[in-house]
Amino acid sequence: MARSFIHVDPDSHFPIQNLPYGVFRPRSGGPPRIGVAIGAYVLDLAALDLAGYFDRTAASGRAVFAQQSLNAFMALGRQAWREIRAIIGRLLDADEPALRDEEELRKAALHLQSDVELLLPAEIGDYTDFYASKAHAANVGTLFRGKDHALMPNWLHLPVGYHGRASSVVVSGTDVRRPLGQLKPPDSAVPFFGPTRQLDFELEMGWLIGTGNEQGRPIPIEEAEDHIFGLVLVNDWSARDIQAWEYQPLGPFLGKSFATSVSPWVVPLEALAPFRIPAPEQEPEPLPYLRRRNPDTFDIQLEVSLQTDAMERPERIATSNYRNLYWTIAQQIAHHASGGCNLRTGDLLASGTISGPVKESRGCMLELTWRGTEPLRLSCGEERVWLADGDRLSMTGWCRGNGFKVGFGEVAGRILPAHRLP
Amino acid sequence: MARSFIHVDPDSHFPIQNLPYGVFRPRSGGPPRIGVAIGAYVLDLAALDLAGYFDRTAASGRAVFAQQSLNAFMALGRQAWREIRAIIGRLLDADEPALRDEEELRKAALHLQSDVELLLPAEIGDYTDFYASKAHAANVGTLFRGKDHALMPNWLHLPVGYHGRASSVVVSGTDVRRPLGQLKPPDSAVPFFGPTRQLDFELEMGWLIGTGNEQGRPIPIEEAEDHIFGLVLVNDWSARDIQAWEYQPLGPFLGKSFATSVSPWVVPLEALAPFRIPAPEQEPEPLPYLRRRNPDTFDIQLEVSLQTDAMERPERIATSNYRNLYWTIAQQIAHHASGGCNLRTGDLLASGTISGPVKESRGCMLELTWRGTEPLRLSCGEERVWLADGDRLSMTGWCRGNGFKVGFGEVAGRILPAHRLP
Repeated sequence: MARSFIHVDPDSHFPIQNLPYGVFRPRSGGPPRIGVAIGAYVLDLAALDLAGYFDRTAASGRAVFAQQSLNAFMALGRQAWREIRAIIGRLLDADEPALRDEEELRKAALHLQSDVELLLPAEIGDYTDFYASKAHAANVGTLFRGKDHALMPNWLHLPVGYHGRASSVVVSGTDVRRPLGQLKPPDSAVPFFGPTRQLDFELEMGWLIGTGNEQGRPIPIEEAEDHIFGLVLVNDWSARDIQAWEYQPLGPFLGKSFATSVSPWVVPLEALAPFRIPAPEQEPEPLPYLRRRNPDTFDIQLEVSLQTDAMERPERIATSNYRNLYWTIAQQIAHHASGGCNLRTGDLLASGTISGPVKESRGCMLELTWRGTEPLRLSCGEERVWLADGDRLSMTGWCRGNGFKVGFGEVAGRILPAHRLP
Repeated sequence: MARSFIHVDPDSHFPIQNLPYGVFRPRSGGPPRIGVAIGAYVLDLAALDLAGYFDRTAASGRAVFAQQSLNAFMALGRQAWREIRAIIGRLLDADEPALRDEEELRKAALHLQSDVELLLPAEIGDYTDFYASKAHAANVGTLFRGKDHALMPNWLHLPVGYHGRASSVVVSGTDVRRPLGQLKPPDSAVPFFGPTRQLDFELEMGWLIGTGNEQGRPIPIEEAEDHIFGLVLVNDWSARDIQAWEYQPLGPFLGKSFATSVSPWVVPLEALAPFRIPAPEQEPEPLPYLRRRNPDTFDIQLEVSLQTDAMERPERIATSNYRNLYWTIAQQIAHHASGGCNLRTGDLLASGTISGPVKESRGCMLELTWRGTEPLRLSCGEERVWLADGDRLSMTGWCRGNGFKVGFGEVAGRILPAHRLP
């Protein structure tokens, strides 16, 4: 098994099998640049590029790593991603002296993660959010529209999705301001304006589009994954009361557009290859443009934790797995482009809330507390039906290999109190 | 009344009172740059900048006009826009010799519009589409959900809107490929995949955000218009059968994301000042964050024309007016940012279909033909219930001044046949 000369804790998310990309800025100063996580370190790709390690690759002479987003690198395409990943893997290998034995280069190219600030990894053109967990769609449908209208007739035929807000996607660690909005609770005859009373998270995963398609030109499903650069954790913060009042007939808008958080490290599709598992059975069989020869998905363990102001450490409140999703990434991409809609480098597509079949695997407060009727009891004695000011919500995810984890780090955010009414 | 030394036809959309901004590339070659339309000409602002005419302004030394989008100029803010507009107006004035009498400069800075290619005016971060015409919302609601559920309960309380697709916004003149998609007509037990049979246009207007707001920080309604750079015509192409099957519960997605066309000339808010009229009465009175002291809107005449393959010239099929909109731009912006969603330079916000109270003023085929039951009869003898391959759909709009028009030019597109099924 590959091993790095850099010590990697067995519980670390970032062994040499992972090598996720991110954008960082040293706290000591200097411009943003691209790095790769390895154990507790960040490997500075701009420094390696300057030292000539990417000469004779597709990245050569383009300064794609001295950038404040991954977009220029992602636009190079899969062949280039493979080349670069192979070079990085070799440089970090325990048996390779080029970086291991060169103190000057190590000093220039390795930063402790605790010494850097992690930035939003991509310049996101469009953000699309799907709705791919059947348990989630059925639960939310039951809560919003009653059991008889829970799953809409289209749900089993196409991966339902909608356009989200790209401007308000933020990197993990960014505080989230409780939004104001129009609310009309059932016991109120007329709507009023005020801070949301039903602030929620949504446990999701997202993927960044590396290379796009020409407008008007669909993406065949067998080619869909070629367009994916890598995956991140996503928290699609939601204000359920704003959403419930506004969403008909055009869908969620301000109930979700105040903030969406993503994890800073983008795990390349290549690193997830060992964790592919057969996709769930689909009945009815999807239409041919959504059919793949050997449909697969990923075995990614997911956890959500909450830490209130009164708690000393986070407490796990939900566990789920990427495999709970009914629709695959390939199906979502093929569907998205089926009418000719063009995907572009840097687009973020997300799964929708990843809920599983049991109560503990529900991926948002709306479901976990059954719209507030079954409060969460925390070990500190507090209860929650929705998120409170000061709460810190974090999500993590990883694939378990033989003696190592390929992990996603975390996506976390803390709730700030609403601004006073204007 | 101000008059330019450049001849401007009385029917031209581009007198000295207008001075709309666009991005163009001379057909003879050279990079894209910013221009202003005057009569049949484009005034090259990059050339004027080089010649020093914008020295001592906020634009000085920033090369904001030697760009392929208006974004850098728009980001300078209203004070700079006013300064630049004043200089351009002065340079084009009949009594001002600086440009009029300088043949070299005129040669460098004035191009015939027929000698240039007009490009997409902005790099659009997010595209939001509202639903602000009461007649349109009521008509579509009746057609999709029946008369009893036509206007949703929220419609009179907030400007309903949704996130559209930014990647597929194209400039007028771009051909539009008929999209494929999942369809499930009422007479079909199961959905199938194929070219849309219900291709439609939507007559809209849009505005570009010049300067944005900080995430988490709402925009008070009295400041909302400060964020607007200017207005354009928008055709939000729609595939009604794809939309009808996919849109519940998360709203329109692929039924609209294959293409949205905008006019190339952005009419500055300043040019529209003489055409402000009181906004429509609103009952019930909106909540305080949507209330303005003297709410106004714009008197902009709008027309839609269709030219089929068999027709020698376009035929008018609908006329409407911007004043038919119930919600004002200021209300839409204040609402959009009310929960803290950040608007950014280059964002496109659009009105939704601008339908009026009478049949001729309906702003899309869905309404004009009452979902296909009342075909449009064209003077050439053809009929249309939806758009056919080869059809060229164009929209225009103008404000009528005393002896001049402040116009928007046109937004037009021609339908290409669908790609064959994959």
